[in-house]
Amino acid sequence: MTIQGIVAATFAAYHKDGSLNTDIIPALVDKLVADGVSGVYICGTNGEGPNMTVEERMAVAEAYVNAVQKRILVLVHVGHTSIEESKKLAAHAAKIGADAFSSVAAFYFKPVSVQNLVDCMAEIASAAPTLPFYYYHMPALTGVGMDMVEFLALGEQSIPNLAGIKYTAATLHEYQACLNYKNGRFEVLFGYDEMLLPALAVGAVGAIGSTYTFAAPVYLRIIELYRAGKLDEAGKLQLKVVDFIRCIVKHPSIAAQRAIMKMLGVDMGNPRLPLAPLSDDAYANLQADLERVGFFKLLQDHTQVKTVIAN
Amino acid sequence: MTIQGIVAATFAAYHKDGSLNTDIIPALVDKLVADGVSGVYICGTNGEGPNMTVEERMAVAEAYVNAVQKRILVLVHVGHTSIEESKKLAAHAAKIGADAFSSVAAFYFKPVSVQNLVDCMAEIASAAPTLPFYYYHMPALTGVGMDMVEFLALGEQSIPNLAGIKYTAATLHEYQACLNYKNGRFEVLFGYDEMLLPALAVGAVGAIGSTYTFAAPVYLRIIELYRAGKLDEAGKLQLKVVDFIRCIVKHPSIAAQRAIMKMLGVDMGNPRLPLAPLSDDAYANLQADLERVGFFKLLQDHTQVKTVIAN
Amino acid sequence: MTIQGIVAATFAAYHKDGSLNTDIIPALVDKLVADGVSGVYICGTNGEGPNMTVEERMAVAEAYVNAVQKRILVLVHVGHTSIEESKKLAAHAAKIGADAFSSVAAFYFKPVSVQNLVDCMAEIASAAPTLPFYYYHMPALTGVGMDMVEFLALGEQSIPNLAGIKYTAATLHEYQACLNYKNGRFEVLFGYDEMLLPALAVGAVGAIGSTYTFAAPVYLRIIELYRAGKLDEAGKLQLKVVDFIRCIVKHPSIAAQRAIMKMLGVDMGNPRLPLAPLSDDAYANLQADLERVGFFKLLQDHTQVKTVIAN
Amino acid sequence: MTIQGIVAATFAAYHKDGSLNTDIIPALVDKLVADGVSGVYICGTNGEGPNMTVEERMAVAEAYVNAVQKRILVLVHVGHTSIEESKKLAAHAAKIGADAFSSVAAFYFKPVSVQNLVDCMAEIASAAPTLPFYYYHMPALTGVGMDMVEFLALGEQSIPNLAGIKYTAATLHEYQACLNYKNGRFEVLFGYDEMLLPALAVGAVGAIGSTYTFAAPVYLRIIELYRAGKLDEAGKLQLKVVDFIRCIVKHPSIAAQRAIMKMLGVDMGNPRLPLAPLSDDAYANLQADLERVGFFKLLQDHTQVKTVIAN
Repeated sequence: MTIQGIVAATFAAYHKDGSLNTDIIPALVDKLVADGVSGVYICGTNGEGPNMTVEERMAVAEAYVNAVQKRILVLVHVGHTSIEESKKLAAHAAKIGADAFSSVAAFYFKPVSVQNLVDCMAEIASAAPTLPFYYYHMPALTGVGMDMVEFLALGEQSIPNLAGIKYTAATLHEYQACLNYKNGRFEVLFGYDEMLLPALAVGAVGAIGSTYTFAAPVYLRIIELYRAGKLDEAGKLQLKVVDFIRCIVKHPSIAAQRAIMKMLGVDMGNPRLPLAPLSDDAYANLQADLERVGFFKLLQDHTQVKTVIAN
Repeated sequence: MTIQGIVAATFAAYHKDGSLNTDIIPALVDKLVADGVSGVYICGTNGEGPNMTVEERMAVAEAYVNAVQKRILVLVHVGHTSIEESKKLAAHAAKIGADAFSSVAAFYFKPVSVQNLVDCMAEIASAAPTLPFYYYHMPALTGVGMDMVEFLALGEQSIPNLAGIKYTAATLHEYQACLNYKNGRFEVLFGYDEMLLPALAVGAVGAIGSTYTFAAPVYLRIIELYRAGKLDEAGKLQLKVVDFIRCIVKHPSIAAQRAIMKMLGVDMGNPRLPLAPLSDDAYANLQADLERVGFFKLLQDHTQVKTVIAN
Repeated sequence: MTIQGIVAATFAAYHKDGSLNTDIIPALVDKLVADGVSGVYICGTNGEGPNMTVEERMAVAEAYVNAVQKRILVLVHVGHTSIEESKKLAAHAAKIGADAFSSVAAFYFKPVSVQNLVDCMAEIASAAPTLPFYYYHMPALTGVGMDMVEFLALGEQSIPNLAGIKYTAATLHEYQACLNYKNGRFEVLFGYDEMLLPALAVGAVGAIGSTYTFAAPVYLRIIELYRAGKLDEAGKLQLKVVDFIRCIVKHPSIAAQRAIMKMLGVDMGNPRLPLAPLSDDAYANLQADLERVGFFKLLQDHTQVKTVIAN
Repeated sequence: MTIQGIVAATFAAYHKDGSLNTDIIPALVDKLVADGVSGVYICGTNGEGPNMTVEERMAVAEAYVNAVQKRILVLVHVGHTSIEESKKLAAHAAKIGADAFSSVAAFYFKPVSVQNLVDCMAEIASAAPTLPFYYYHMPALTGVGMDMVEFLALGEQSIPNLAGIKYTAATLHEYQACLNYKNGRFEVLFGYDEMLLPALAVGAVGAIGSTYTFAAPVYLRIIELYRAGKLDEAGKLQLKVVDFIRCIVKHPSIAAQRAIMKMLGVDMGNPRLPLAPLSDDAYANLQADLERVGFFKLLQDHTQVKTVIAN
């Protein structure tokens, strides 16, 4: 399997009473397929995997696999403080026909060396040996900031199904080194949406991110422009992305993105504690801010462009 | 309920194959009762709660409640990234007859304000409304370092069964302020064993800690000396504690304490990843170090003293 | 030299135009002598040494030495990013008749090992070989958190005039271990005023802190009560200290303490950038807060008590 | 003034006895001019400004201005814990004919808001009102990580001679936003050499970095390839840069770069404490590592290419 293009790290969906809402998933998947994404990454950070029970995570995974119907890829995040629980989730992902799985580092007790991290991931990966496994590198959230080139070197030896890394950090030099490890033996999916263009410049071919859930066509256009050598235009479009993401990160980022989904007509409910929804004021401010930087027009324009291309 | 004296935060026990070992619990409990502890705190940090499945955590809780037979208190740690899972654990603790429960702050997504933290704890605490609930404050591990006096003030309003805090931090001024909040309305159990004596000096009456699992009589003697006004003797004994804990923290601390249990004849197996056991060399070094600072003699002396007192 | 009792870490004084104000020093020193302090620690953190030029720091040191006239000790902080500048300040301190000197760890480039830290301090200490030198340990501000027992062990070998440590951290177990290093070969002055009582409980005999500049008699009474075995009374008085320091730390702490000096009739001017004075609102809030916890009455009571004792 | 191309952040030079070596500067400058750099940035982090006395920093600045003779730009870093000292250095830089000056944020006491940071920089910048001023953003070292777009917005209002930012961080999205602030009103010089290519992709036109002191022709070639639309070749060359920088950062980075200068025939002496030179073993390992990744050949190749171009 080689993941190219962009993969949407989708958000969790809840009913008004806080219970899981899987009903919304088919429509969301259809929209993402129409938007041109290559896959979905579920139960990750934005997908609130850590906020759900094991049973709920399995239900979400099943709902996505059923909704997707092999049109795009389904990557299941199985990270958990308990490796035993991670293994259950991994085996389940394989059983239901997911395409790949992924895990963050342990985050209560934290790995103390690259080898220790590899040992953890090897244990998890072994629970679904036929599926490609991607380590989810996200030092800002987990506090685990190991050298990823060393991770690939050690992981190669003890994780037979290691396919690569979901790389969510701004350090593009290390990212470039990972991409080029043994002439590109591993897939290194870039996870920092606001830096997609510079990541392309050092060789990115695949990316996973939460804003791809609502703005995929814009990013696909950036890739298209970059591939066509239209660097200035690509830069201008990436700047528009930076502008709207700067609006988002004035707020707690997951709540703000869920608010955007609602503005776009997809109500995913309130996130679970310790996350909290935007206040009404914050919601209104965000909407005005996004209006000001041309976010809604940007989405509209690129959906149109895409249709034209599709014809 | 008022918790006085010391509560042992016990270690997880595993068989050679890594599966849970609950067989060892009755003998361990008998030893702790004989040592004079007031209770056990289970499935916490040293108890590796976050490394276990929900089912395993329930099995451990049941084993302790059964072994204890009301001779001492059983406090069950229910902290989890998923509040839904925490609530299951809390309801189970109440059902099986545990005496109290406790939770760390969320630690994947972290609370962003004291009120947010209180909201999380209120949700968890509501799942076992008849049991006393203790917030487990451990900023060094969770990265959540809120003001604990504010926590009591806000928690008082929305957590009816809030009994207090397991306070694991060196900031004794805040600890003293918590102890004196509304003339001692809450129990604030001190969790930093190597600072027990200075905590007594600002009013501690109860403490929870992992080294009480193997050295309770030494600490009980420190309390006794302090209560008798023998400050110099208490200080000398606390210094011996500091000396052996300095030996421990040269190594990963949980692994080192599990090694000590083994040296004392209680083999609790290897900890689970990402934790790892001490290497043979490290084990030997620790043993020699402990020998050098008189740790084993210290234990022996105080077990003898205690027996004499008991007669 | 053995430093017992409390040493006031005094604040910088500036004129309205921001220039150094040394005129205020004699009266401040007379007040501190009357308050019973054992010495002054100048140009430290609260003394804004790092905000001054080398020439200004020398001027401050001279003003204090002249004002003190050997009635109490003068300790000069010489910490600087440039060890060359530190050495100039150290040699100057010796020349003008200061009693001791002290330095924080380098804080732009940070020491990477205990030996590296000792090498830095040895270089600085060598510039005034006849004066006792105290390493100023303040990990929260400098980000340099080395093991202080190791520091003493290595420092003993290469810093002939090493007298001890100004220990500004809450980790009383390490503090106790330092105090007892080779049966008390070094002086370890405690620097966390709000934890003075628990520090006494593990053996503190000397302390340096900024709130001793305005509340020395209260702390001296705590020491007196503790020495007399009146632990409950000592605890109650320490709690009052905790209460007023909690008022202070709601604000930037140096600005708040300078505001207190002003409330007490000593106008030391505005601190230098990046520090800023309290806004008028914050000033008023602090004053009301301090009134509420009985701070001003506390000072008054203890000044009276002291006079009675003195007679 | 508009700074384009690359500016070498040069290293400090010392004699064997640790005293300043300014004799070496003319030859170093001639080499840098021949290498094609646009300027030098002196007394910065790699230039060990914070390790020198004010007088030494002035001597270094004079030596560079004299050696350069207006062939390239001279940017003087004046950052210091004391703003008064910074102002002296700034006024001196203007007096001796430097082209621009720059300062890090205060780093003992740290700014607490963007406005506070701007207030500090305004004060420093005012000491040389006729020279362009660049804020030196380096959160990893100073711990001051403010929003740089806000800094430009507030700085624009109160720092008349604000020319831009030396931006040393991997966060290219913010970097891109800064570059495009008011259509490029400010110069934002990129300071993370190992990410030069991706920075070009978001619009960088100027860069400042320490490795430009010894490898400028390689980087100039990357810029040339990028400008010519040869993205693949540019990427391959940037990867070689990443490779050799990965060798450097296995060691303390300043010491390793000074070792490289020595390998290339320029002995700049030992850095000052707390920095330390590489051990002989580390030196040999670094040399072997660099050999392995083709670093020396890379330099040689690109110096030749450059000469050919120059003809």
